[in-house]
Amino acid sequence: MKTPLEKFAEWMTDQKIDVVILEDREETRNSNIRYLTGHPGDALLFIFQSGDTLLLPWDMHMAAKMASATEIIPYNDFGRSGIQAIQEILKTRKIGKGNVIELSSSVSHTGFKKLQSAIPNTGLLCREDGAEEQLGKMRMIKTDKELEIYGKAFAITDKLIDELEEGLRKNSFPAELDAALFIEKRSRELGAEGSSFEIIAAGPERSFGIHAVPAFSAAGFLGSGLSLIDFGVRYCGYCTDVTVGITREPLSEKQHLMASLTARAHKSCMSACRPGTGTKELNDLAAAIFSDQGFTLDHALGHGIGLDVHEAPYLRGRDSIPLEAGMIITIEPGLYDKHEGGIRLENDVLITEDGHKTLTNSRMIHL
Amino acid sequence: MKTPLEKFAEWMTDQKIDVVILEDREETRNSNIRYLTGHPGDALLFIFQSGDTLLLPWDMHMAAKMASATEIIPYNDFGRSGIQAIQEILKTRKIGKGNVIELSSSVSHTGFKKLQSAIPNTGLLCREDGAEEQLGKMRMIKTDKELEIYGKAFAITDKLIDELEEGLRKNSFPAELDAALFIEKRSRELGAEGSSFEIIAAGPERSFGIHAVPAFSAAGFLGSGLSLIDFGVRYCGYCTDVTVGITREPLSEKQHLMASLTARAHKSCMSACRPGTGTKELNDLAAAIFSDQGFTLDHALGHGIGLDVHEAPYLRGRDSIPLEAGMIITIEPGLYDKHEGGIRLENDVLITEDGHKTLTNSRMIHL
Repeated sequence: MKTPLEKFAEWMTDQKIDVVILEDREETRNSNIRYLTGHPGDALLFIFQSGDTLLLPWDMHMAAKMASATEIIPYNDFGRSGIQAIQEILKTRKIGKGNVIELSSSVSHTGFKKLQSAIPNTGLLCREDGAEEQLGKMRMIKTDKELEIYGKAFAITDKLIDELEEGLRKNSFPAELDAALFIEKRSRELGAEGSSFEIIAAGPERSFGIHAVPAFSAAGFLGSGLSLIDFGVRYCGYCTDVTVGITREPLSEKQHLMASLTARAHKSCMSACRPGTGTKELNDLAAAIFSDQGFTLDHALGHGIGLDVHEAPYLRGRDSIPLEAGMIITIEPGLYDKHEGGIRLENDVLITEDGHKTLTNSRMIHL
Repeated sequence: MKTPLEKFAEWMTDQKIDVVILEDREETRNSNIRYLTGHPGDALLFIFQSGDTLLLPWDMHMAAKMASATEIIPYNDFGRSGIQAIQEILKTRKIGKGNVIELSSSVSHTGFKKLQSAIPNTGLLCREDGAEEQLGKMRMIKTDKELEIYGKAFAITDKLIDELEEGLRKNSFPAELDAALFIEKRSRELGAEGSSFEIIAAGPERSFGIHAVPAFSAAGFLGSGLSLIDFGVRYCGYCTDVTVGITREPLSEKQHLMASLTARAHKSCMSACRPGTGTKELNDLAAAIFSDQGFTLDHALGHGIGLDVHEAPYLRGRDSIPLEAGMIITIEPGLYDKHEGGIRLENDVLITEDGHKTLTNSRMIHL
């Protein structure tokens, strides 16, 4: 099996690209650096057509422990300036006139213009359908090694869902933060690196928001109505993402309907997961189930997961692509009402040659 | 007193800019939307020269509770496409040929090109020294209202530091996650929205990294050596940021030296905080104290805080600007060694007319 880096270098050769430069920093995270080298972030990465890599990490100790690159030089050696680093590295490597350099598609317009003036006379590419799209396509289809890591990540996630249900049934989480911090603690005890995003624990008073602000609070969690807990773990860099929907009696008629419609949309979309189904088709299936009863799907139905908690493919009302075996996606329909609160149900699914495999065991918990 | 929005509209008039368009989304956060309207995020904001604003939030319920804008329309009405939304809004408002539209300086190069084709014949600005720089300058100098909010934020932060020290002295935090989750819980109980960034709790085995990966874990926290806890709270959107340095005997000679040098650099830099001192001057002061003893300052000395935990001014070895009254900055020297571990000490400081006021009470805790 070829490594992702070997595959990517082949693509660069096909495309006649001499160097690809990627940067991960606080303002623009770029998990492709972790994908290609194992280094967790805050770094500049040069990938040469030969497959050689040069990593400039902010933290050399971290790189020594985690990164696999042909050469590693401190970012600090270049006055902590990305542009200065690129100028000097290209000069040292004799890359200039006649060479093609591709930048990340997320580079800012102002940054692009500055770099263009700093290294004139080089072919500087920055495009949507280039290197980063190629890496996105590669990352969509999980390798056996990635699926192995995910096996452990999903086992931890499922254990947490079970423990969460147990705690909810025993009223062990009087406040939103009790549920959220239980997950933060147990996920790490079970071997996860931590949460894959800020846990949302929204009780009946705050579940009206798709993503509650703040994500969890000291507010009560035991009132009647609709609640949700949206969480995931990160294991060896890989993210899971599930939402448990919670109803607590007595419910209004509308709350009953919102919970059952959400469950129905979730079930229908899961059943439709197989190679060839379009991402928009899935999204529109949930939207139609909701609109039949006068509700709307106010956010995308789901997304791919991997080193990023949100990555391609995106399941939404535009840019449809057919599902393929090896993709891992979330299915997460939800309904939100200013007065009635909100509810969402989300599981992670692997697309297989002959359909799909449900990877997580999230469910509606009726109390 | 003029509101930030009124001040910004005046600047737009001076600059002859008809509309400024800002977007906050997962890939590129933009706190200026919260600064100008109160809306916490995931939205597109149009600011017109008249001072009128048009907000297109992803979550209408959230906007109804938190946003203050002249008009609010769901982002969903435009097929969840920023470009389509901009096209339609400008058309409705009859903004086109002859008008000047400025975009965020963080807009991607690919996004800029796409929008340029979508709205040809309009003056489209995207520059480093434009609208966003102006907002950054405004945000650097805190208003009385902001200082009032910060009063509460710092009181919570100080209470947490005291409780943290008490817990450390009683050995109440056997694992890193016990300390981190204690802060997560208590910050919310004390009224904070939550943490202003992912808490770093790095025990002796993991403190060698400037930012430990993962940020906190189930690893032990009671061993001898150097440890650090880097945390902050968010209160009404505003961030605090402190680091407690921890030593636990027996220490090696080098560990003793690292802790005392860090404390000395911290003290010297705090003393030098006053209007007119350059940001680079402060950074270089700490760097010189370290290099005198054969160590290096491997990260920037500090940064401004506000709606973002890292914002202007940046205290680093380049782009020096003079401190001004009303700025709130962090001072956070630290030393890291692959074998000896790492330690950092960080407090938040308000620059005043005649010097500075230390806002937080972080310290070295020797156990």
